[in-house]
Amino acid sequence: MSETKKTTIVLFSGDYDKAMAAYIIANGAAAYDHEVTIFHTFWGLNALRKEENIMTKKGFMEKMFGKMMPRGADKMGLSKMNFAGFGPKMIKSVMKKHNALPLPQLVEMAIEQDVKLVACTMTMDLLGLQKEELLDDIDYAGVAAYLADAQDGNVNLFI
Amino acid sequence: MSETKKTTIVLFSGDYDKAMAAYIIANGAAAYDHEVTIFHTFWGLNALRKEENIMTKKGFMEKMFGKMMPRGADKMGLSKMNFAGFGPKMIKSVMKKHNALPLPQLVEMAIEQDVKLVACTMTMDLLGLQKEELLDDIDYAGVAAYLADAQDGNVNLFI
Amino acid sequence: MSETKKTTIVLFSGDYDKAMAAYIIANGAAAYDHEVTIFHTFWGLNALRKEENIMTKKGFMEKMFGKMMPRGADKMGLSKMNFAGFGPKMIKSVMKKHNALPLPQLVEMAIEQDVKLVACTMTMDLLGLQKEELLDDIDYAGVAAYLADAQDGNVNLFI
Repeated sequence: MSETKKTTIVLFSGDYDKAMAAYIIANGAAAYDHEVTIFHTFWGLNALRKEENIMTKKGFMEKMFGKMMPRGADKMGLSKMNFAGFGPKMIKSVMKKHNALPLPQLVEMAIEQDVKLVACTMTMDLLGLQKEELLDDIDYAGVAAYLADAQDGNVNLFI
Repeated sequence: MSETKKTTIVLFSGDYDKAMAAYIIANGAAAYDHEVTIFHTFWGLNALRKEENIMTKKGFMEKMFGKMMPRGADKMGLSKMNFAGFGPKMIKSVMKKHNALPLPQLVEMAIEQDVKLVACTMTMDLLGLQKEELLDDIDYAGVAAYLADAQDGNVNLFI
Repeated sequence: MSETKKTTIVLFSGDYDKAMAAYIIANGAAAYDHEVTIFHTFWGLNALRKEENIMTKKGFMEKMFGKMMPRGADKMGLSKMNFAGFGPKMIKSVMKKHNALPLPQLVEMAIEQDVKLVACTMTMDLLGLQKEELLDDIDYAGVAAYLADAQDGNVNLFI
């Protein structure tokens, strides 16, 4: 009996390129019939933010984090050669030329392929992010749920 | 017979937030009865430094590294939005508000839960760190010992 | 019957210190008789670039990326304390003093130990890197090949 393989990725990084790598691996693993989970924590939560400004009641610090962090996958910067936002434009331009999918579409594809997208509730709390600000089709969980997935995982990555 | 699960983390990063993520996962895994090891290498060694200035005999380069690197978990910067040290203050302030444990307490909790904290001897050498500068309850080992742990690991992460 | 263990590393980072860590773990695992693969993607591809300037036909964007990215392992910067290139000099100086192998030799050693070095074709395309610009003894593959390796891996890391 062949067992379903499992891929579990912690997406900690808020960099566009790292999030792309995470979602490309996740989509590849889903196409390979793995059961795939991406656990978004810290700056990785920004990949799940809705693009529009959602009105929420927040404290001062949470408001500041909310303002300073990118709203959604399309707004994230690069880990290298960001050049005040010019780097992402270059990458997106060459991606278009090479017909590579930009990050927001990679996220959509992951949802279509039933990749489980999880937002880490503890870091949501810390960064003052609320459920209304995040995409609709996602799960909410903490480190215990992550470990329950990861301990049976074949491919476990921290990105 | 159920076997003990193993979590083995390489902590390479010297960022406060990444070290927090490493220690939160490690403490979670220990609470889950995993056998947990954090292997500290390169800048991750700074999480194990004592806060006080320890007098040691060092060459010029080692002294410079020693001076420029943060002394202990509490002094580390953020991977994102560090803002010349203001970022960590913000994070620590919201952490306090949300009753989240700061990094030095996460390290203490790990020690209490018998998480094996290992300092990579090769990179200690490179960065000129000496045993007297690091916490007392830790182990010293090289890459071979790391691989011996990791090859039987269920959750292996590089952070 | 004891099975061959497998170590599979995604090298995403273009930092000298992170690439060193990847190659030290890879060489250690190879010495431990693991079957080892390093899958170079995004900025990690720079570790495989030849030092000399190779003439190739490229579009404008690809030329810009080519110019701005370091040519080969020896030219890469540090993830921390890079100080406009002074950091790598410091590290290389202490490495020499402590008889630690610099990155280009770690790459050579990996090739001698039959570590499989793979260049990610999708990101080569994106960054406009061509086969003639990369080392000779390497493989070319995409995310599917990576997952085929990683799903049976004992140690899977994303660096």
